[in-house]
Amino acid sequence: LDYQHVQVPFEITLWIMLASLAKIGFHLYNKLPSVVPESCLLIFVGLIMGGIIYGLNDRSPPVMDSDIFFLYLLPPIVLDAGYFMPSRPFFENIGTILLYAVVGTIWNVFGIGFSLYGICQVKAFQLQDVSLLHNLLFGSLIAAVDPVAVLAVFEEIHVNEKLHILVFGESLLNDAVTVVLYKLFRSFCEMPTIKSVDVFAGVGKFFVVGLGGVLVGLSFGFTAAFTTRFTKDIRVIEPLFVFLYSYLSYLTAEMFHLSGIVAIISCAMGMKRYVEANISLKSHTTVKYFMKMWSSVSDTLIFIFLGVSTIGENHEWNWPYICFTVIFCLIWRALGVLVLTFFVNRFHVNTITSKDQFIIAYGGLRGAICFSLVFLLPDFHRKKLFIAATTVVILFTVFIQGMTIRPLVDLLAVKRKRESAPTVGEQIHIRFLDHLLAGIEDISGHWGQYYWKDKLEYFNSKYLQKILLREYDQPKSSIVLLYEKLERKHAIELAQAGQLGHGPAHPSFLCSAFLCSSSDRTVITDQKLDDTPNPNVLDNIQEILARNLYRIRRMGPAYNRHTLPGDSEPTEQAKEILILRHKSL
Amino acid sequence: LDYQHVQVPFEITLWIMLASLAKIGFHLYNKLPSVVPESCLLIFVGLIMGGIIYGLNDRSPPVMDSDIFFLYLLPPIVLDAGYFMPSRPFFENIGTILLYAVVGTIWNVFGIGFSLYGICQVKAFQLQDVSLLHNLLFGSLIAAVDPVAVLAVFEEIHVNEKLHILVFGESLLNDAVTVVLYKLFRSFCEMPTIKSVDVFAGVGKFFVVGLGGVLVGLSFGFTAAFTTRFTKDIRVIEPLFVFLYSYLSYLTAEMFHLSGIVAIISCAMGMKRYVEANISLKSHTTVKYFMKMWSSVSDTLIFIFLGVSTIGENHEWNWPYICFTVIFCLIWRALGVLVLTFFVNRFHVNTITSKDQFIIAYGGLRGAICFSLVFLLPDFHRKKLFIAATTVVILFTVFIQGMTIRPLVDLLAVKRKRESAPTVGEQIHIRFLDHLLAGIEDISGHWGQYYWKDKLEYFNSKYLQKILLREYDQPKSSIVLLYEKLERKHAIELAQAGQLGHGPAHPSFLCSAFLCSSSDRTVITDQKLDDTPNPNVLDNIQEILARNLYRIRRMGPAYNRHTLPGDSEPTEQAKEILILRHKSL
Repeated sequence: LDYQHVQVPFEITLWIMLASLAKIGFHLYNKLPSVVPESCLLIFVGLIMGGIIYGLNDRSPPVMDSDIFFLYLLPPIVLDAGYFMPSRPFFENIGTILLYAVVGTIWNVFGIGFSLYGICQVKAFQLQDVSLLHNLLFGSLIAAVDPVAVLAVFEEIHVNEKLHILVFGESLLNDAVTVVLYKLFRSFCEMPTIKSVDVFAGVGKFFVVGLGGVLVGLSFGFTAAFTTRFTKDIRVIEPLFVFLYSYLSYLTAEMFHLSGIVAIISCAMGMKRYVEANISLKSHTTVKYFMKMWSSVSDTLIFIFLGVSTIGENHEWNWPYICFTVIFCLIWRALGVLVLTFFVNRFHVNTITSKDQFIIAYGGLRGAICFSLVFLLPDFHRKKLFIAATTVVILFTVFIQGMTIRPLVDLLAVKRKRESAPTVGEQIHIRFLDHLLAGIEDISGHWGQYYWKDKLEYFNSKYLQKILLREYDQPKSSIVLLYEKLERKHAIELAQAGQLGHGPAHPSFLCSAFLCSSSDRTVITDQKLDDTPNPNVLDNIQEILARNLYRIRRMGPAYNRHTLPGDSEPTEQAKEILILRHKSL
Repeated sequence: LDYQHVQVPFEITLWIMLASLAKIGFHLYNKLPSVVPESCLLIFVGLIMGGIIYGLNDRSPPVMDSDIFFLYLLPPIVLDAGYFMPSRPFFENIGTILLYAVVGTIWNVFGIGFSLYGICQVKAFQLQDVSLLHNLLFGSLIAAVDPVAVLAVFEEIHVNEKLHILVFGESLLNDAVTVVLYKLFRSFCEMPTIKSVDVFAGVGKFFVVGLGGVLVGLSFGFTAAFTTRFTKDIRVIEPLFVFLYSYLSYLTAEMFHLSGIVAIISCAMGMKRYVEANISLKSHTTVKYFMKMWSSVSDTLIFIFLGVSTIGENHEWNWPYICFTVIFCLIWRALGVLVLTFFVNRFHVNTITSKDQFIIAYGGLRGAICFSLVFLLPDFHRKKLFIAATTVVILFTVFIQGMTIRPLVDLLAVKRKRESAPTVGEQIHIRFLDHLLAGIEDISGHWGQYYWKDKLEYFNSKYLQKILLREYDQPKSSIVLLYEKLERKHAIELAQAGQLGHGPAHPSFLCSAFLCSSSDRTVITDQKLDDTPNPNVLDNIQEILARNLYRIRRMGPAYNRHTLPGDSEPTEQAKEILILRHKSL
């Protein structure tokens, strides 16, 4: 037995296998996932496993390595989030999102940091040795809302698109702020004295880290799009470039101490439309499917590891500090949302309702990012207290808030996501309005979002498309695009109907279809499947197929990390088909 | 700048990126790949890169790590090979393949080992210090035909299926023999005396290593199939199981010193039909596409690393030893093929022609497996000589034989692969004959391949399908299966036709299609794309689509690692459609 030799890949494979099997296990019981969010269940599995490891070895199970988390587990999730980000609502609300992400996070950091410092001054709590800087450092890591946790919960509760993008966008973009503040306070902790220059340099860094991330991401994204211009002859490696370039953008940003999350999101959003146009349909299916698969596994592993790492002797328990951390996290976030939304609503016609505000405040879940950051802290005598407090905050938000948010959304009757896609009429109307508003803005000299959008679209069609698209001959009219879309939809649905064959009701249906067209049967068995065609025979077959194939229309949810659009329930389809066939007979 | 932090993933990503870009580069010049095999070009790129690294650093560039090769680069290629292995020709020729793989490899090992020992006895060559055991050890690593190199060359020359499977099957299955002999001789080298017991134990090991590999592979394969029974609710992670279980089978086999290659091939062949039936069509596309992508990248990396590792100061040059190694490799392989084929032909009606024998002998390419094995040798004073000889043999076979085999195949007019798939009539006939022959074998009491195949099929439908398939209700009649196949083919072809939209000729064609059905246009723009359907409107659309869609039939090569079946050339399709439309108008 030579275990040493294969240990690393073997254990990685086993962990991934465990995560996948756990996922299958939950979905076997249909009722479980509808009550408890998957993230809670996975943390629970992790807790049990950690307990087993602790019981067997009699020492703390290994904690999640921060390097592994930031280099290998986080990127797939963020890439998936960026690639499937609905760009219209995102850019429509970018101002609000940035306000929440930047000002809101700073507010939370300082609010939590200062008020915890106040608690530390109470003598009875025996916490006087925790300095203000340490409290601020702790505040900087505990304040950030976690995209992984938010996604895991919000994609199950289906709130309206605007609310979703506000919380989710904030959780993604606050990374730049978190990175800067965390690194700033950590270096302050190690400095003997802090000059005011350092503080100003810190403020300047915000812009460098955020905008630098965007720049790195966009440049890699456009390079990726440019590369896929030349992959026509080797379709198989097309999907690779999407993953390679996005990952490189993340790593490059991390290397220069910029925001990796912002970089990979910019990269994904920048490349998407060009890459989609360049690569083949099968490559695109692979890209989408693999991204979902990868992020889903990463996310499962993160929650399991979170559970495993909770068990052990890394904790120092101090009731007041931990309780007040949870309370301050809730209070400061609620206050921040209220104040910021008050300003936002003054400048917008389409205001954020008080119900939405409650969900935004309540949906501020903490997760694995805080956890990894707290383990990255330099060693000092109260580190274990910080670890304990972080763990409690994460478990509290994921379990208590995560499990109650769905009933609350039901109870408050928060506006849900629209279940149907916009009609063609609506789409045309929206586009028309966009052009109109851009014109009005141009005339009135007010450079609002429509003006910039129009300029960007012009720049895109004038320069970017010519460079980045392989077959950029003439701009296609929208009616042609619509036709292509319909054509593709139709074909894909035919393929789905073809899959029905595995359903129980299907064979009999097919047999009956064959029996009523017994004259055609001989035609089929005689013709060569893949040979040079006999047009009559083929027409016959097409007729049979057209008669028996049925078009099934359904709407999947717009963004869901665990399902792909087009995943269908065969039994339902089979039923629908049977009913239709009955009618037609 | 914090390069240390991201170094490992960054460099891995860059290497993969380099490999992919190199691949794109070759395919940009259409003439190059048709003259020189890709493997040669990649080695050439590697040589240049190695030269640059050597020139800049003034020391040998890093050689390919054997662990990385065996644990990470080889499995994807072998998995791809096993998964897409045409099972009928493989099992029909399994006897011949095993004869070549086992007896042929042993013949080569001892032939090369003993004759090189003979050369070492010539005093003028100054090689008396190389013992017989060392020569045999060297023989054991240099004798094995390499699957990666064979695939890279044979998938470009399109010889007939039987010839292809004989060479390729041998290169895969000789792994068990190579592993045993290599480890045997290596341990003999370290032993003070060799007892006859050890030799017998070595012979016994053949069976353990080979059959053990098959057992490990099949058990993982069936577990994978069983697991995919339960993935109905989470389609996104389905493809993962195919990769995880195959990789685990490889690692487990390696852990127990069994043949990993044999294990992963058994796993892939064992799971394929059940997994395909259980998972969704999109998952299956992802599995196929990703496998091709992965193996293609691995294979590119291997050849580039091979080139890089060639440069440097690892070599000890000795003209006679190196030249005679090349000559003996050629002679013993030719002799072995001649003798073994003589026996094979005596027992078969469908004999192997002398042209085929020549190609089998000439196609015995060596590659990265030999290279990794020679670096794994324990340190002794002549290791550098062995490395030099191995490098020369690999470069000789890949460059000289690899580049001349295509002209030779043309010159000898070797029977090519049949370009068209068998017709339905042929398929039915073949199946009928199979049943007939199984019956005849049963009556005559001769237990040949048809008898066993029949038994296996019975066992499969009686037990395995019931356990491993999700929706095993009743056995489907072949006419239903045929219908499903047609249905799916049709739908996929529609999707391909839909992709034409990107071709230059397409927009005008579409516009004309729209103009002649101007009454339908309003219908389309009014209907909701994804909403509850209005049957009339939908029927209208289906009619338009059916009128404009054209069925394109083409045959891709049956096995090719670089393309997927169904990759099409859009301009050609567009032309065909235009012609057809002209006719119909």
